[in-house]
Amino acid sequence: MMDLKGKDVLSTSGFVRDDVEGIMGVAAKFLPVAKKEQTSDVLAGKVLAALFYEPSTRTRLSFETAMIRLGGRVITVVGVDSSSLSKGETLADTGKIIANYADVIAMRHSQKGSVGEVAAAADVPVINGGDGTGEHPTQALLDVFTILQEKQKVDGLTVALVGDLLNGRTVHSLSYLLSLFKVNLILVSPEKLKMPSYVTDMLKSRNVAFAETESLEEALKNAQVVYSTRVQKERFDDAAEYEKYKHYYILTRELIEKYNKDLTVMHPLPRVGEISEDVDDLPGAAYFRQARNGVAVRMALLAMVLGKA
Amino acid sequence: MMDLKGKDVLSTSGFVRDDVEGIMGVAAKFLPVAKKEQTSDVLAGKVLAALFYEPSTRTRLSFETAMIRLGGRVITVVGVDSSSLSKGETLADTGKIIANYADVIAMRHSQKGSVGEVAAAADVPVINGGDGTGEHPTQALLDVFTILQEKQKVDGLTVALVGDLLNGRTVHSLSYLLSLFKVNLILVSPEKLKMPSYVTDMLKSRNVAFAETESLEEALKNAQVVYSTRVQKERFDDAAEYEKYKHYYILTRELIEKYNKDLTVMHPLPRVGEISEDVDDLPGAAYFRQARNGVAVRMALLAMVLGKA
Amino acid sequence: MMDLKGKDVLSTSGFVRDDVEGIMGVAAKFLPVAKKEQTSDVLAGKVLAALFYEPSTRTRLSFETAMIRLGGRVITVVGVDSSSLSKGETLADTGKIIANYADVIAMRHSQKGSVGEVAAAADVPVINGGDGTGEHPTQALLDVFTILQEKQKVDGLTVALVGDLLNGRTVHSLSYLLSLFKVNLILVSPEKLKMPSYVTDMLKSRNVAFAETESLEEALKNAQVVYSTRVQKERFDDAAEYEKYKHYYILTRELIEKYNKDLTVMHPLPRVGEISEDVDDLPGAAYFRQARNGVAVRMALLAMVLGKA
Repeated sequence: MMDLKGKDVLSTSGFVRDDVEGIMGVAAKFLPVAKKEQTSDVLAGKVLAALFYEPSTRTRLSFETAMIRLGGRVITVVGVDSSSLSKGETLADTGKIIANYADVIAMRHSQKGSVGEVAAAADVPVINGGDGTGEHPTQALLDVFTILQEKQKVDGLTVALVGDLLNGRTVHSLSYLLSLFKVNLILVSPEKLKMPSYVTDMLKSRNVAFAETESLEEALKNAQVVYSTRVQKERFDDAAEYEKYKHYYILTRELIEKYNKDLTVMHPLPRVGEISEDVDDLPGAAYFRQARNGVAVRMALLAMVLGKA
Repeated sequence: MMDLKGKDVLSTSGFVRDDVEGIMGVAAKFLPVAKKEQTSDVLAGKVLAALFYEPSTRTRLSFETAMIRLGGRVITVVGVDSSSLSKGETLADTGKIIANYADVIAMRHSQKGSVGEVAAAADVPVINGGDGTGEHPTQALLDVFTILQEKQKVDGLTVALVGDLLNGRTVHSLSYLLSLFKVNLILVSPEKLKMPSYVTDMLKSRNVAFAETESLEEALKNAQVVYSTRVQKERFDDAAEYEKYKHYYILTRELIEKYNKDLTVMHPLPRVGEISEDVDDLPGAAYFRQARNGVAVRMALLAMVLGKA
Repeated sequence: MMDLKGKDVLSTSGFVRDDVEGIMGVAAKFLPVAKKEQTSDVLAGKVLAALFYEPSTRTRLSFETAMIRLGGRVITVVGVDSSSLSKGETLADTGKIIANYADVIAMRHSQKGSVGEVAAAADVPVINGGDGTGEHPTQALLDVFTILQEKQKVDGLTVALVGDLLNGRTVHSLSYLLSLFKVNLILVSPEKLKMPSYVTDMLKSRNVAFAETESLEEALKNAQVVYSTRVQKERFDDAAEYEKYKHYYILTRELIEKYNKDLTVMHPLPRVGEISEDVDDLPGAAYFRQARNGVAVRMALLAMVLGKA
């Protein structure tokens, strides 16, 4: 397994199976801290800079919670405020300055490649919290961690990815990470929102069995895990088009109980109707546990890049 | 006394006298920490999420100070930023997610009932930091605590509430809490800004002696405590109407020295002219001590709902 | 040396040489903590309020980092949010309230004198983080500290200040602090952006040797330290005028290698082209180390005003 000490975490695309399993192992170790059952001081004396040029409250709070529950401390820059970081300076200069304050940086920015620019200049580890249409590696890792927590394995599972597979950055990165395991994928989307060919080509080249379909029922009949996603309103130029697709698939308690009572249901959140609320009480509804798992995975990454895992 | 461990604090309306006295007792115990005379680690390892959809810097800093002076840590969401929490999701979903990060939530929101929605969904305690025209229980509690600190009792006092009694949420909640004690109230306001009947009906039903008047002098002659409030500009549609009332009552040093040198003067702050600055040096000017008492009361509530009081 | 315990730090203008050397000595003691080589808990239990009415992310993060790396904790108010602090209240009232929460205040505000108003009212120490066209004492102190770190002395050096000397608050305060030492100054600017006479008069009255010139080469030939500054776009009414001056002086690797390979290059940052990137790798490029030195100097001031140095 790759030693992450001092390294940046910008993308999942360099990971091999050992890397992912290594991170999952550390995350599992920290899970009781994320669940508030234990406390830890493993990152005492360390400072995280949370640089959220693009506000993403959920991801920011998850990183900050991970840091402080391991005894570390946080300095935060959010949204419009962060514009004052620049006053025209380069991202490289910003990276060099922040590296003088913090031991590790978690950064989100609307522009693809921006986090990499900061990472190249900063002499402290940088973790990508999402760079526009680029990568969001911690989301994909926490998704795999959630499957492991819910099913105790990844190998041998059939996983259905459902919804806006065209625009959903999350499902692209997850597809890659799942390709490191022995899975079957069912890709469920409207014709117009199909998985892009660069992802399906990757799956083929890695000999991952997958099927594409418009039918949610087909997924419910065959999958052990359904990963539902929001249709990305911000990617539609035409409001009517968005309205047509936004509730194309709605996962209900009735459907789950009809086809597969043991189904694990995941969602990166926020949901806006893709999963009806009556699903929440089912034992397989894992989407809120996913949020907690995100804290554990970010704890693992913070501790690993700081050499404290 | 009610055990607050694991409970939400959404409203003062369910409190009985024992509850209030119990909270006051814990707040008194924490007061030396709030006054910076002692330190405490009673909430070490605990995380407060301060969710301020509506910015209210004073209340937010008071909660955060309470948490960190007891050894706890804070994650914060403020103002516009918090809109990104939702992206269309329900407050219930937000509550469930934040409950995976934090041990306790303090929340302010412009919409009545919103804090209750989060509390119903979150499986951690939620403390209401103000929900629009709804409740603001910590303010009312710190007001009673301030009276106790200044006068060593509540029973037997005559308390005058002065100013915009129609729109001031603060004086409504305070009226209820004072009704649990043996007080006389003098309600001083312009005719147009009288205390709403739902409050005066409550006072009658609870046999609280009260008088309504337009005369500040009458209050100064008879009360031991004057609680002055700001006219709520934001509730007036007509700017001229606001101008007419904003300085309807101005409490000056001259008035206080003429009528009652021992008068305790309170104000929820910010003041915008209702109390002249020459009052600040009088021994009875309690409004800045109120701010410090607010930290002690919030310490008490945080510790109690977390089972650490 | 002046005892700073309980004192405000509003300006450098009252400092004598002993004061500056005293602060430099404490900063040097804390430098290994700022450099992350050591940890400290000297400010455990203390709370800093960072009140940044005017967003200045760099300065804010530097103060916050200084506080938390000494074991202290921080409450923060940034930008638009801070408007809600006032709702029309005076800065004096704000100061009195915040003093009930925090042990020390670091404040930045666009209005000259504003920080002094808060300091006069608050009964905790207030450190000026920049008040508009007023003062920014921590910047000037960290500049002197950087010269000391880079050259092991100040006496006997020739220091060139380059760029917009008219509008650069930084170079005005730095000129005063350098006048406490035995330095030669070279003031390099376009005719239109010359050092104001109140500064040159001060230098004359204090018998500081200085020359004014338009020539960067003259500075490079004679100085051991060049302090480059950004042309302050926000001070130009005429965009064309700004364009004319913004890159009037560009310090390149070629120039430095031609005239003085041992030159120490400083800049308050952000830079927007005044120093070309190929300078960054030169051993004398001190501008990113300046950022780290800022943390050490702010650690010194925080510890000193809190009586913990």
